[in-house]
Amino acid sequence: MSIATVVSVFNGEHSVGSQVTVRGWVRTRRDSKAGISFLAVYDGSCFNPIQGVVPNNLNNYQDEILKLTAGCSVEMTGEVVESQGKGQTFELQVTEVKVVGWVDDPDTYPMAAKRHSIEHLRELAHLRPRTNIIGAVMRVRNCLSQAIHRFYHERGFLWASTPLITASDCEGAGEMFRVSTLDMQNLPMTDKGEVDYDKDFFGKEAFLTVSGQLNAETYACALSKVYTFGPTFRAENSNTSRHLAEFWMVEPEVAFADLDDVAGLAEDMLKYAFNAALTECREDLEFFAQRVEKTAIERLEAFVSSDFAQVDYTDAIQILKNCGKKFEFDVEWGIDMSSEHERFLAEEHFKAPVVVKNYPKDIKAFYMRLNDDGKTVAAMDVLAPGIGEIIGGAQREERLEVLDMRLEEMGLEKEDYWWYRDLRRYGTVPHSGFGLGFERLVSYVTGVSNIRDVIPFPRAPRSANF
Amino acid sequence: MSIATVVSVFNGEHSVGSQVTVRGWVRTRRDSKAGISFLAVYDGSCFNPIQGVVPNNLNNYQDEILKLTAGCSVEMTGEVVESQGKGQTFELQVTEVKVVGWVDDPDTYPMAAKRHSIEHLRELAHLRPRTNIIGAVMRVRNCLSQAIHRFYHERGFLWASTPLITASDCEGAGEMFRVSTLDMQNLPMTDKGEVDYDKDFFGKEAFLTVSGQLNAETYACALSKVYTFGPTFRAENSNTSRHLAEFWMVEPEVAFADLDDVAGLAEDMLKYAFNAALTECREDLEFFAQRVEKTAIERLEAFVSSDFAQVDYTDAIQILKNCGKKFEFDVEWGIDMSSEHERFLAEEHFKAPVVVKNYPKDIKAFYMRLNDDGKTVAAMDVLAPGIGEIIGGAQREERLEVLDMRLEEMGLEKEDYWWYRDLRRYGTVPHSGFGLGFERLVSYVTGVSNIRDVIPFPRAPRSANF
Repeated sequence: MSIATVVSVFNGEHSVGSQVTVRGWVRTRRDSKAGISFLAVYDGSCFNPIQGVVPNNLNNYQDEILKLTAGCSVEMTGEVVESQGKGQTFELQVTEVKVVGWVDDPDTYPMAAKRHSIEHLRELAHLRPRTNIIGAVMRVRNCLSQAIHRFYHERGFLWASTPLITASDCEGAGEMFRVSTLDMQNLPMTDKGEVDYDKDFFGKEAFLTVSGQLNAETYACALSKVYTFGPTFRAENSNTSRHLAEFWMVEPEVAFADLDDVAGLAEDMLKYAFNAALTECREDLEFFAQRVEKTAIERLEAFVSSDFAQVDYTDAIQILKNCGKKFEFDVEWGIDMSSEHERFLAEEHFKAPVVVKNYPKDIKAFYMRLNDDGKTVAAMDVLAPGIGEIIGGAQREERLEVLDMRLEEMGLEKEDYWWYRDLRRYGTVPHSGFGLGFERLVSYVTGVSNIRDVIPFPRAPRSANF
Repeated sequence: MSIATVVSVFNGEHSVGSQVTVRGWVRTRRDSKAGISFLAVYDGSCFNPIQGVVPNNLNNYQDEILKLTAGCSVEMTGEVVESQGKGQTFELQVTEVKVVGWVDDPDTYPMAAKRHSIEHLRELAHLRPRTNIIGAVMRVRNCLSQAIHRFYHERGFLWASTPLITASDCEGAGEMFRVSTLDMQNLPMTDKGEVDYDKDFFGKEAFLTVSGQLNAETYACALSKVYTFGPTFRAENSNTSRHLAEFWMVEPEVAFADLDDVAGLAEDMLKYAFNAALTECREDLEFFAQRVEKTAIERLEAFVSSDFAQVDYTDAIQILKNCGKKFEFDVEWGIDMSSEHERFLAEEHFKAPVVVKNYPKDIKAFYMRLNDDGKTVAAMDVLAPGIGEIIGGAQREERLEVLDMRLEEMGLEKEDYWWYRDLRRYGTVPHSGFGLGFERLVSYVTGVSNIRDVIPFPRAPRSANF
């Protein structure tokens, strides 16, 4: 008798006739009139539970087995037999069921085997991984993260963990969370009546980072190819389905690479990750296609087999102006495109993922490389059908004098960027990178539209429970 | 002509006689009297730079090549030839050197090709990845992180990202960083004169997590095998070589597993990771053995080929009392062993990695499973020769009534742990896990003794630069 995961039984890793013990939780129990019970037991190793056929001559049949309910934990031992049911390869002819943990008051068990609204599940973040949907999300999330690490590793990138706590709001991007150990009830003050951050843990004001990019650049300018995969924070007070206060980002940064190089890298990475999901999480994706988003599988398959379109921002604006469609927000050269524009381009015009390149410098960050026209920068957004922007990137300004000019234009202090400027003073190289919001990727692959449902414990305004 | 990484040339991926372009930074330049220059160029893809043999008939030989200094970025094109030098397989017979970026005032370039103290390099965290030592650390760090992800993936674990921001100090472990968006200069107060956290971003006090364990347990109790790999925080005001305010932790959590199961998992994981480093980062480890820690390679090889010893805490105390050695801190049953005790056990007594098990309950956390003796809990520490404690873990208390008793004993409120207790109310299972401080692992493998030097941008008291 050996311990077996459910997936290993389904995959035929235990020969028919052998005895195995599966350990997990009861999804459902069904009793036939003939005095046989059917237990569906899951353990998280795959989407489907395994069926145990339990004869009524087991010792604890009356006292225990007939009392099993959804959520009870069991060790179920039996002989592997070919399944008569459709869709399943193998099941267990059960010889022993050991009850490990009961469910307190099954009538009020929050995860009883019925369908719950996904909003309701969010309130029960500690139990929702027991549901089909969150279990499937987690397997896909894991698959995508493993694929991303593998992708970069195979291509010779080094994972570089950039710091979460930062004392400089270098990017100036939006609201940041303050990190402090000062006694709030009793703040130390300077002579001038200001909070005395010199007394704080880091000896100055500190915040949670909004991006690892500037730090990653220092490593790319030494080791050529690096990527980050870590948490990032935004203190924006926005309660949308696409925003979290804490989320995971993937940020590759490549020396000697221009914008087209990293556009190609983005295309390769997305296709690699989607192929992994299509191959390794088929059952989970089938569930999403059935219950959440009909096109879940087709749109991934279309994505991996399509060539990305490429269009200049300036041309994209012309397309939008001439398309005859009425948009909520007016289209003019210089605007920051909104979601309706982006989705029109990807879904209706190009009918493919699109890389929009060379945006007006005034709507982009100081570190993006100025193009020869003096008006645009070498920035890109990757727009995906069905979701809009999924990746944002740029070639970085590697010329010290241009960088300084841009800092000045934007009213930023050169001194604050001394170490960033050093990279341009000492052996500067063209380099480029992009950022991928990992939860948006998981959301896209699963079709689960609110990103609070694709991260284990979502953080949002007024919401940091568990 | 094709673009090549340095490692790909060394590995013979480009046939002798073919033309390749290598892109990177000059480590050294040496000019022979015969009118030939030798450029050593690195790109981070491996430890050694590649040698380019540059004839003096190149167009820019006088004007540029003879002015190249350490840190200049170049694109060097040439024919792959077998190297005459020892230790190197191939070099380039150079036909073109394009200078991409010069070094401003080479005499003051902080990373000029001389040896710097590792403390000095810490002040230059943005440039130190250009040094041999930090480059090697980063390749080993990357190798270990990839190996850890691979290890768990191969064994069917799911990566679960637990939250960084938490509103509950569940573990009560040490000082935490507060996360807030309140205007410190103008704090909102309640009628009672207390800071009004209801006005804060999350509507209550929030902190940076000290461990993902309790959250990971909720996922293990649904999906069986999970692990975290993410940042963790300690606001301890300690300036030691083994502490950081921000560091990365690996925390597996396994359902239906007891303490011995995860002791075995810890052994397998460490050996897997060390084998990866020995195989994939040989040159880097040779450098560490030469320059940092003589036994760097031997001790890893000894580690992977040794069986872990196992000893009960109670027996370990007897060993320490009877060993005849004088310790700084007295040995009595009930003490929290200090580093000298741990290292004696691993280095002198067992001469192998040791798992110490079943610690007195009074020195361990509430969630560790109470043993039948009523005095000890199923906790373990893994001690490694040369470093001491590297892993801490435990079987978790899965029995609700015992958990409640322990909470009460420790003066903790049951209500604060409602969701943690729910796991014991609904299909509870025996489960176990451990935590590995990732930087301590990198420090152990490289021999670089201060963990500030094995993380890209260390955070410590009064130190959050870059």
